Amino acid sequence: MSAVADFGLIGLAVMGQNLILNVADHGFTVVAYNRTTSKVDEFLANEAKGKSIVGAHSLEEMVSKLKTPRKVMLLVKAGKPVDYIINDLVPLLDKGDIIIDGGNSHFPDSNRRFDELSKKGILFVGSGVSGGEDGARFGPSLMPGGAAEAWPAIKPIFQAISAKSDGEPCCDWVGPAGSGHYVKMVHNGIEYGDMQMICETYDIMKRLGGLTDAEISEVFTKWNTGVLDSFLIEITRDILKKNDTDGTPLVEKILDSAGQKGTGKWTAINALDLGQPVTLIGEAVFARCLSALKSERTRASKILPGPKIPSGVVKDKQKFVDDLEQALYASKIISYAQGFMLIREAGKEYGWKLNNPAIALMWRGGCIIRSAFLGEITNAYRQNPDLENLLFHKFFTEAVTKAQSGWRKTVSIATEYGIPAPALSTALAFYDGYRSERLPANLLQAQRDYFGAHTFKVLPEFASATLPEGKDIHINWTGHGGNISASTYDA
Amino acid sequence: MSAVADFGLIGLAVMGQNLILNVADHGFTVVAYNRTTSKVDEFLANEAKGKSIVGAHSLEEMVSKLKTPRKVMLLVKAGKPVDYIINDLVPLLDKGDIIIDGGNSHFPDSNRRFDELSKKGILFVGSGVSGGEDGARFGPSLMPGGAAEAWPAIKPIFQAISAKSDGEPCCDWVGPAGSGHYVKMVHNGIEYGDMQMICETYDIMKRLGGLTDAEISEVFTKWNTGVLDSFLIEITRDILKKNDTDGTPLVEKILDSAGQKGTGKWTAINALDLGQPVTLIGEAVFARCLSALKSERTRASKILPGPKIPSGVVKDKQKFVDDLEQALYASKIISYAQGFMLIREAGKEYGWKLNNPAIALMWRGGCIIRSAFLGEITNAYRQNPDLENLLFHKFFTEAVTKAQSGWRKTVSIATEYGIPAPALSTALAFYDGYRSERLPANLLQAQRDYFGAHTFKVLPEFASATLPEGKDIHINWTGHGGNISASTYDA
Repeated sequence: MSAVADFGLIGLAVMGQNLILNVADHGFTVVAYNRTTSKVDEFLANEAKGKSIVGAHSLEEMVSKLKTPRKVMLLVKAGKPVDYIINDLVPLLDKGDIIIDGGNSHFPDSNRRFDELSKKGILFVGSGVSGGEDGARFGPSLMPGGAAEAWPAIKPIFQAISAKSDGEPCCDWVGPAGSGHYVKMVHNGIEYGDMQMICETYDIMKRLGGLTDAEISEVFTKWNTGVLDSFLIEITRDILKKNDTDGTPLVEKILDSAGQKGTGKWTAINALDLGQPVTLIGEAVFARCLSALKSERTRASKILPGPKIPSGVVKDKQKFVDDLEQALYASKIISYAQGFMLIREAGKEYGWKLNNPAIALMWRGGCIIRSAFLGEITNAYRQNPDLENLLFHKFFTEAVTKAQSGWRKTVSIATEYGIPAPALSTALAFYDGYRSERLPANLLQAQRDYFGAHTFKVLPEFASATLPEGKDIHINWTGHGGNISASTYDA
Repeated sequence: MSAVADFGLIGLAVMGQNLILNVADHGFTVVAYNRTTSKVDEFLANEAKGKSIVGAHSLEEMVSKLKTPRKVMLLVKAGKPVDYIINDLVPLLDKGDIIIDGGNSHFPDSNRRFDELSKKGILFVGSGVSGGEDGARFGPSLMPGGAAEAWPAIKPIFQAISAKSDGEPCCDWVGPAGSGHYVKMVHNGIEYGDMQMICETYDIMKRLGGLTDAEISEVFTKWNTGVLDSFLIEITRDILKKNDTDGTPLVEKILDSAGQKGTGKWTAINALDLGQPVTLIGEAVFARCLSALKSERTRASKILPGPKIPSGVVKDKQKFVDDLEQALYASKIISYAQGFMLIREAGKEYGWKLNNPAIALMWRGGCIIRSAFLGEITNAYRQNPDLENLLFHKFFTEAVTKAQSGWRKTVSIATEYGIPAPALSTALAFYDGYRSERLPANLLQAQRDYFGAHTFKVLPEFASATLPEGKDIHINWTGHGGNISASTYDA
């Protein structure tokens, strides 16, 4: 057998098949392998027929068909299966060969694999892949990170098959070790947030505005031509238009119990670990958890009262819908600002040099969160790669300023009439907290010092001999008890 | 040397010293040890003088002075120090001796230590200890769990020194393995929430109501005689009254940047891991994170606009304050309901039989979150140990019903005038979500199926031949692309 293939791919589920077809479309020869080899035969006999795709029935056969340096991509279930395949693959490879994990691996796993494979001379790349079935087939967003020496070898393939935004590929080198999967994780967290916010606006339009699904679809159609222009708005428009065989909207027949597979949760946990207030993703994950408690909610709906919604509570529907658009837009700005706060902190914490404009561009097209909006974020970071916060960029400062009135009205009306809007509300609470020079954490520090001797610092403008600037100060608030600072106890 | 001591304690920081004094006060003889042995001598020469307390300058000496079965409690920094001491201690002990870790250990560590020590015949107890300096000295809340065989031996000491509520000790056996530290972790998370909610009401009174600290202290004085009667309200009242040497309130000079040592974060992470919507603690942790970004906030305060607060915006101050009290009360009910949802799920997930009424009683007195309110929770779980949710207990159903109007008004006014109230708002959003039979997660499931073939289920009342009940259904929303369900990709 001769080494004919430019690229190998392991795992012929829908994403793997589509990605192979995409690579083949761009003039590369691909060798396809799957552990259940009947899938290889089926794929070759059907979708792959007539294309520059060859099959392999063993890892050995796959490796023998690859040109060096070999480039093997895994699209298998995250977790142990990735390790098993890597273990089987490594003895067959040469130094300088490249293993790309394109699954939804958790970034600490990618850090570990990068370290382990580095020692063996194998170049490991952990790559985020987003865009679902269609993305994989026609242009995904690709977020590769890991062994930088691998980038020149995979760049021609990755940038060829990726989505394009204004002619630029939505794929660039993210950074070292597990940073590619890290950025994909944050992408997924943001995706959770975007979806939750859209759901809240739909719910408010339906329950408060009394709009039909067809009318709501029209609203999304219009929004999709403005600042909210994005894939998720577009598919929401389509979903709301889709009727079941009986002519009624299909979406209204779907069980309101959301699934999740963990990547949004990972982002929220990482935010807590890094001490970054990524509240919107947190609320979005919790909203899915709450939705899953369907039987408990059904019981609660019969016991726990809420405000009556008078018919015709929304007098001016256009104004109501415009306010909602502003609420969604402003909340989305907050969510992305929070996401980039997290990425900035991760760069510091993990010692990764990350490229913010490239990240925004990678999300600009191809992936689930793709939007016109991400073009503005790309611009913001291109103008100032060290931008402290997205909200400090003129475009976004002006956008939230302009959106604020509609945003507040939307959250207020939802609060008043009892429609849950946890994502839109937390975004506003974050905005108001972020723009507060003084927060009530002074009282919280006093409480901690009172009961646990945890100490506090003084505001510089009030420093004095008894309250020295920069020092950890403990006050005997009670008049009794010791004056030892807490060294063991934490609260 | 003879075995004279009933109890040994390692770690003479403030909590350790105070706990020893407390045990000695109740007629037990305690042997005190600290790695830096000068602390032992100082303690014996001062606070411990004339009491039934003896010292040890080595672990060997401590062990030799203890009656069997030996009961040794560690009050040292959580983490490695606990393992180091246990490693040194075990060879000196006999089977059936008891090691109690009273530090703020993370419950997975306690699970591990319980397993390791079980194999060696040593009875491990992980015990939550709450109440700060004063609590340790005069009656803490104690939450022991682990080797059930240890309970009869330590019960007389633990229940003697613990706080009492209506004559009942705020200490009972929690459950197996690391469940004692687990319950302490949730306690700390709830403490984060309580503190954050109090801070929000203070901030709203100050910034919106224009109340002085002295006036706010009076409000807390009054609240402390009603449904909010609790330790944290009481100390807040005192803190706000405390003036610096110049006669102005000390609290206003404290830097508004909150510290945290991780236990609140652990609770939020555990909630995400167990899929329980513990939103209030999540927001409380994130609020501390946001407060820590002081310089960024200061910059933001000059750039990001908010609504003008007209002077005299609050017309009826009494009504305003009463609404706030209801908002705080209702939000607190939500927070505890969420906390017990988490504990219930932990019991299922970890296979622990946990005693809800006992947990509520342990928190009723002695600890930081002690309150009259916890007496009602104890009652609720005593009446129905299998209560599905606190909100379903008549007392709390009626309480949130009554509080609702003031709660909504408070969140609305904070939203309108730009005072951040993330904890009060998220509590209300949770309440409205929880009592919603239908949430917009149907749309979310449609989105996930559209872009990722993640499938959905049908609402039973709409089941049909094409939408079969209970089955995972995938629809080809786009008209193109495959009809394979996602097996590799998760979002």
